[in-house]
Amino acid sequence: MGGDKAPGVVIEGALQAVARGNRVILVGRPEEIVGAGDIPVHPASEVISMEEDPAKAVRQKKDSSLLRAAELVRDGEAAAMVSAGNTGAAMASALLRFGRLPGVVRPAIAVPVPGGGPHPVVLLDAGANSECTAQMLVQFARMGAVYASERYGIALPRVGLLSIGEEPGKGSPLVKEAHKLLAAGGAGSELSFVGNVEGRDIMTGDVDVIVTDGFTGNTVLKTLEGGMAYVFDRLMSVFNSNPESREAASVLLPLLAPEAERLNPDSTGGAILLGVDGVCIISHGASSAHAVEQAIQVARDLADHGIVAHLARALSGS
Amino acid sequence: MGGDKAPGVVIEGALQAVARGNRVILVGRPEEIVGAGDIPVHPASEVISMEEDPAKAVRQKKDSSLLRAAELVRDGEAAAMVSAGNTGAAMASALLRFGRLPGVVRPAIAVPVPGGGPHPVVLLDAGANSECTAQMLVQFARMGAVYASERYGIALPRVGLLSIGEEPGKGSPLVKEAHKLLAAGGAGSELSFVGNVEGRDIMTGDVDVIVTDGFTGNTVLKTLEGGMAYVFDRLMSVFNSNPESREAASVLLPLLAPEAERLNPDSTGGAILLGVDGVCIISHGASSAHAVEQAIQVARDLADHGIVAHLARALSGS
Repeated sequence: MGGDKAPGVVIEGALQAVARGNRVILVGRPEEIVGAGDIPVHPASEVISMEEDPAKAVRQKKDSSLLRAAELVRDGEAAAMVSAGNTGAAMASALLRFGRLPGVVRPAIAVPVPGGGPHPVVLLDAGANSECTAQMLVQFARMGAVYASERYGIALPRVGLLSIGEEPGKGSPLVKEAHKLLAAGGAGSELSFVGNVEGRDIMTGDVDVIVTDGFTGNTVLKTLEGGMAYVFDRLMSVFNSNPESREAASVLLPLLAPEAERLNPDSTGGAILLGVDGVCIISHGASSAHAVEQAIQVARDLADHGIVAHLARALSGS
Repeated sequence: MGGDKAPGVVIEGALQAVARGNRVILVGRPEEIVGAGDIPVHPASEVISMEEDPAKAVRQKKDSSLLRAAELVRDGEAAAMVSAGNTGAAMASALLRFGRLPGVVRPAIAVPVPGGGPHPVVLLDAGANSECTAQMLVQFARMGAVYASERYGIALPRVGLLSIGEEPGKGSPLVKEAHKLLAAGGAGSELSFVGNVEGRDIMTGDVDVIVTDGFTGNTVLKTLEGGMAYVFDRLMSVFNSNPESREAASVLLPLLAPEAERLNPDSTGGAILLGVDGVCIISHGASSAHAVEQAIQVARDLADHGIVAHLARALSGS
């Protein structure tokens, strides 16, 4: 029921995912879920809107599609949940119904950021925790490495710590302390800590995972989103300047389309909440049917790979 | 003597600035400053390189061009200093030799960020203080507003506080506290506090000043820099795909050039250190002669407008 174009595009995405061999349960108001063919519908009478306060909404709307979906996962009736709705409420639903994995101080949101590498860079925390401790950043490093490893098949993910200079002594007190812990091997041996990275390294593809606090991570992602939107907007405006430019653009647009597609958040399969006892994938609110299908595919792959068990094992030493 | 292409491009930029009616003193090693025509040279035997630790360098190199330039301003022999060198060392030189304005807790670096508005957005702090208090952010708001007003002629600058949600309750404890102080008019009446803004608002031009701590500000600027570099790189690569794309690109490039020029940090005249008793402009290390000329022009305009006196007056109530 969530997302700017729900439930229409969600149903469409679910149908595409089913056609690719996935099994899906749609959760929401049965009377609004039309055209879903043979896909089973699990009823939930309430809807949490994009604008609602997440904490308040999950307290009050016990029969919301988000909480009901999380319960299906908790009860073993579903392997993962996917939502294009209110991010905070989806995360809160997963946290409340799944619970944390043992030893996890705070779950974190991991977002794949496409760039120059063969696969997107995993950035976390993307906004779950606006205040962090160094110990939390160390856990994020470990969880991000497990995720990058499961999702992109990287044996020893290279993990960078976001700071304002490459030297270990650069950054806020939080970053300096986290750097010490990570350099001392605090995140375990299944990752390679490469030290501090800077904002300009996010899109180079030189690291696989970038760790930061949720305030910085969220700001960085929205800054990139705004920057890209601005550049594409100006580009289209220049392409449409006059008949000659439109003619020239018609030659280039087919070549630019794959690049734009690669940078489109729709293609990356959405954010994941790491550190909870279940798989919860959050797709962009403006997700297309294709984005929903991608998110379902990613959720299924991660569940199949047993990502939660791998996270639990990786975190058990912390 | 500072910058990746010094002293050549600096001399060239100075000559262009003089041709436009500015008076310039070049500070550095006389034997290396060649081809500067009638421009007077103030001798300084030492050079602080781009890689040196700023604090250590300014302690040890008393006869560096940066400290000598700052002394010329302190002694009233120059109205402002301009450098394309080591940012931290330039700032430290200005802070040491100019001193702080009365009441200033910590100076901040303000950077103009070009985007969709009629003038760039002033972002501060861009990296002088990796840890800030709410009171510091309130001072930054006031200083940023004075700067936007002097530099772009904005009567009542719109000031936004960078956060991870537009609602006053969103963000880190620091941001929430600063929001309260700013909403209560803590920054004075010569600005309009518009509340929280997000990363995606930086390039829209909907505000004139964006206030944040130096860690976030520096990260955001480098993220944008990296994102833009990536997109332009991919664009050029697509334009060069084949003979047809090169032909089409040749039609579009003249139309794209003004956009690229607008987004080029060279065109914005560099960063300024606000809160010290003098004008100090820092240009990008990779500055072209044109960028140096721009920085000199901006420094002169700000000195002519009496920006330091205006800042002192605005801050006297804090």
